[in-house]
Amino acid sequence: MTHPAIHEFTLAELAERLGANLVGDGSQRIRGLATLREAGPDQVAFVANRSYLKDLSDTRAGAVLLQPEHATVCPVTRLELPNPYLGYAQLSQLFDPILATPRGGIHPAAVVADDVALGERVEIGPNAVVEAGVELGDEVVIGAGCFIGAGARIGAGSRLHPNVTVCHGVAVGERVILHSGCVIGGDGFGFAHDGSRWHKIAQLGSVILGDDVEVGSCSSIDRGALDDTVIGNDVKIDSQVQIAHNVRIGDHTALAGCVGIAGSTRVGRNCMLGGGVGLAGHLTICDGVQVTGMSLVTNSIHEPGVYSSGTGAMSNAQWRKNAVRFKQLDDFARRLARLEKRDQG
Amino acid sequence: MTHPAIHEFTLAELAERLGANLVGDGSQRIRGLATLREAGPDQVAFVANRSYLKDLSDTRAGAVLLQPEHATVCPVTRLELPNPYLGYAQLSQLFDPILATPRGGIHPAAVVADDVALGERVEIGPNAVVEAGVELGDEVVIGAGCFIGAGARIGAGSRLHPNVTVCHGVAVGERVILHSGCVIGGDGFGFAHDGSRWHKIAQLGSVILGDDVEVGSCSSIDRGALDDTVIGNDVKIDSQVQIAHNVRIGDHTALAGCVGIAGSTRVGRNCMLGGGVGLAGHLTICDGVQVTGMSLVTNSIHEPGVYSSGTGAMSNAQWRKNAVRFKQLDDFARRLARLEKRDQG
Amino acid sequence: MTHPAIHEFTLAELAERLGANLVGDGSQRIRGLATLREAGPDQVAFVANRSYLKDLSDTRAGAVLLQPEHATVCPVTRLELPNPYLGYAQLSQLFDPILATPRGGIHPAAVVADDVALGERVEIGPNAVVEAGVELGDEVVIGAGCFIGAGARIGAGSRLHPNVTVCHGVAVGERVILHSGCVIGGDGFGFAHDGSRWHKIAQLGSVILGDDVEVGSCSSIDRGALDDTVIGNDVKIDSQVQIAHNVRIGDHTALAGCVGIAGSTRVGRNCMLGGGVGLAGHLTICDGVQVTGMSLVTNSIHEPGVYSSGTGAMSNAQWRKNAVRFKQLDDFARRLARLEKRDQG
Repeated sequence: MTHPAIHEFTLAELAERLGANLVGDGSQRIRGLATLREAGPDQVAFVANRSYLKDLSDTRAGAVLLQPEHATVCPVTRLELPNPYLGYAQLSQLFDPILATPRGGIHPAAVVADDVALGERVEIGPNAVVEAGVELGDEVVIGAGCFIGAGARIGAGSRLHPNVTVCHGVAVGERVILHSGCVIGGDGFGFAHDGSRWHKIAQLGSVILGDDVEVGSCSSIDRGALDDTVIGNDVKIDSQVQIAHNVRIGDHTALAGCVGIAGSTRVGRNCMLGGGVGLAGHLTICDGVQVTGMSLVTNSIHEPGVYSSGTGAMSNAQWRKNAVRFKQLDDFARRLARLEKRDQG
Repeated sequence: MTHPAIHEFTLAELAERLGANLVGDGSQRIRGLATLREAGPDQVAFVANRSYLKDLSDTRAGAVLLQPEHATVCPVTRLELPNPYLGYAQLSQLFDPILATPRGGIHPAAVVADDVALGERVEIGPNAVVEAGVELGDEVVIGAGCFIGAGARIGAGSRLHPNVTVCHGVAVGERVILHSGCVIGGDGFGFAHDGSRWHKIAQLGSVILGDDVEVGSCSSIDRGALDDTVIGNDVKIDSQVQIAHNVRIGDHTALAGCVGIAGSTRVGRNCMLGGGVGLAGHLTICDGVQVTGMSLVTNSIHEPGVYSSGTGAMSNAQWRKNAVRFKQLDDFARRLARLEKRDQG
Repeated sequence: MTHPAIHEFTLAELAERLGANLVGDGSQRIRGLATLREAGPDQVAFVANRSYLKDLSDTRAGAVLLQPEHATVCPVTRLELPNPYLGYAQLSQLFDPILATPRGGIHPAAVVADDVALGERVEIGPNAVVEAGVELGDEVVIGAGCFIGAGARIGAGSRLHPNVTVCHGVAVGERVILHSGCVIGGDGFGFAHDGSRWHKIAQLGSVILGDDVEVGSCSSIDRGALDDTVIGNDVKIDSQVQIAHNVRIGDHTALAGCVGIAGSTRVGRNCMLGGGVGLAGHLTICDGVQVTGMSLVTNSIHEPGVYSSGTGAMSNAQWRKNAVRFKQLDDFARRLARLEKRDQG
């Protein structure tokens, strides 16, 4: 997509924002970011790691973010800083057209209860519904078609993209980003069985999202049964993730797409769960755990480190031969032990 | 979350509703439920199973739901009944603020076709859209932003939370609960290939949901190709579940989060599928089957019982060593057999 | 579901549309499609493959689509053609009540920016929001409650079912079908870590959907970080699918329900991914690859063919015995090799 440039900055301005060391012409005007290969003279590129150095000598970028030790092979103006990928993240914010769009105030087609507490410069989009007793902090943006249930609170600087649902009583921190289609505070899955049928357990807890949380498109975080479901500060949640009732997730943890976490499990701080990972219920995962994609975790983890399960894909012919043997593993173990015993006997 | 108490009940009133044996002061006023550890004097707690007995002697709850055999260690008023967890479920309904909210009638910002058949005391929220020919039973609640397609029917006492989509012609039973973001009756995935490209097969069937069904946030149930997709009575479906076209699910079956069921599969009555379970298409799963989390079922199941697949997570170092051997299993089997033959030869 | 018949056609008319050889009475009026078993005299059935031939001799259908070689056992009027399943797909379009519903124009409760470029015969449903700079091609249908962000383009003949979200700048091809609850163009999952916390990388790319794409209910396709996420022509995507930023998918590829594709992976043309398949990031999957349900792909695939991973479900008792051995596989391998060496020594 080619966006119209929303803002322009000189390289000198960008260097100052990043605290980077500018080597070259600071007057060049920059209108966006691109990869080393694609960038033109009005765009900044970056060298995130050594594997990109091969593209550096041919770049036509207006400037390149890089570490000082890579400066010698850079043919254009450079912005030297210790963490170029972080610099890229910081600059990217300047060129996001969503962030550059002026605030729209409260759209006449929004339905906002009389007693809603509105901070300064709040935007509420068309057809959004904000129920009684809601509190919206300063500079909150509620996208078109969002629903904010009775008594919910959204902290300052948070942005709800269109068609987000925040159920009654949910508490959202500051600078939180909720993407379209996500649902925060739907009922947890709780029923009592009477021997013949299910009886619903009303989900009387809520969801608490810390500051700087992000939740991806179509993800769901269910409300607690009695206590709350609690997501820490700076937790990043990708699309299509399901977090069940009474889960607690520690600060700075990141969950990739399609992760599912069952009820009452606690995940520590600074964890990373790969795409499609499943955590069973009532587990405790300590700080600093990484789980690789599509692994199933059925026991608590008490040591930081990387964890995995499953097997990678192979040709179906090869797989058929081997997968059928899985059912024979216990038999193999016994036969192997017997042979060893006779061998030693 | 601390909700304002919506209702208060005396312990005597609660005992009568549950048919429980009250031992202690029935005049105490109760404003909610909590765990044994958290409950205060205006809250009721419960002993769901023996593992909670350790918290019983220190509880400050106003009363505790428990089985008569646990009465001796209870320091506070007790409500004795055979299934305390069921009692908790029943009481929880009394304290749900959503259920206690007075009905709002038809909001002026709802868009309701002229010929919609409305039962008594129906609520339709702001920005909901109800198309022509829809029938809404008594006490149906349609949340803000919901869409009800032409000719759909919603049975008495059902509640659609905000931003639910029910497509044209879908039939929803009585006392059904649909959570935000779920989609009932989107097209099944059907195409014919002409050797070079796909041709869409219009999905001319519908979805039928029985009575007392619950569907979680962001779940989808696709409409049938020619016949209908049919969900039985008292089927409970968690969040992020996908049910493909022409699936049939028997009464009282429960599906945990992220389950996926492929087309035309039939699941029996009183089954339980754990989180992330996948069922291939065109299978028959008999009554009374439980499948543990993230298992893949590729064959029909004809015997009740518990079924599993996959392997649990281990440290990545350990996993790397072992997972690579999976491709050698058939080779192992042959080598093991050869050794045994020579050993016996 | 029994829809009121929207259209009627004579068998002669249907034969002409399909280019089929009509053998029997062409004046019979047809009001729909059904299976061989269920069809009545005003419905057409079909024999998709030999396994259905057993139902042919008893059918009461008004006519049957079949290959000429199956004509001898057909007791009713027949429509002979080389690919009956394709014929069924083509006829199914004629009986879809959604397609037969007259266009509604722009509903007064839609919120449409002044500068939107509208093609001929565009329909925009109630409570839809169409932002500034959007272009809608001829005969585009935007369902109730949809959101179309600033600068997005929707090609001619495309249909967005209710409650779809298309974010700013997204480009949708012609004749595309987007089902309810799907989100096209939410942010990709990109953050830089500064050693203690995450910094968001604004997702400045977009999503490009080719012509004839279909996206199922509650699926999400994330926008690119710098470049775009690109979905080719005639790509068919089922419900609950997650496609991460900068993924590229070739023409005619089909993704079944609950598939997840991680960032920057490229999938070729004419591929088929089964339900729940996961592709790791930064892979290349060549043309003509099929992956069976719930497989995990962690390496690029350079040869067309069928690929699989995992193991199917078995009884939990059997599974427990065998799954525990998975952690011993490397040990088995070493012990087996030692025995062989001694055996040969």
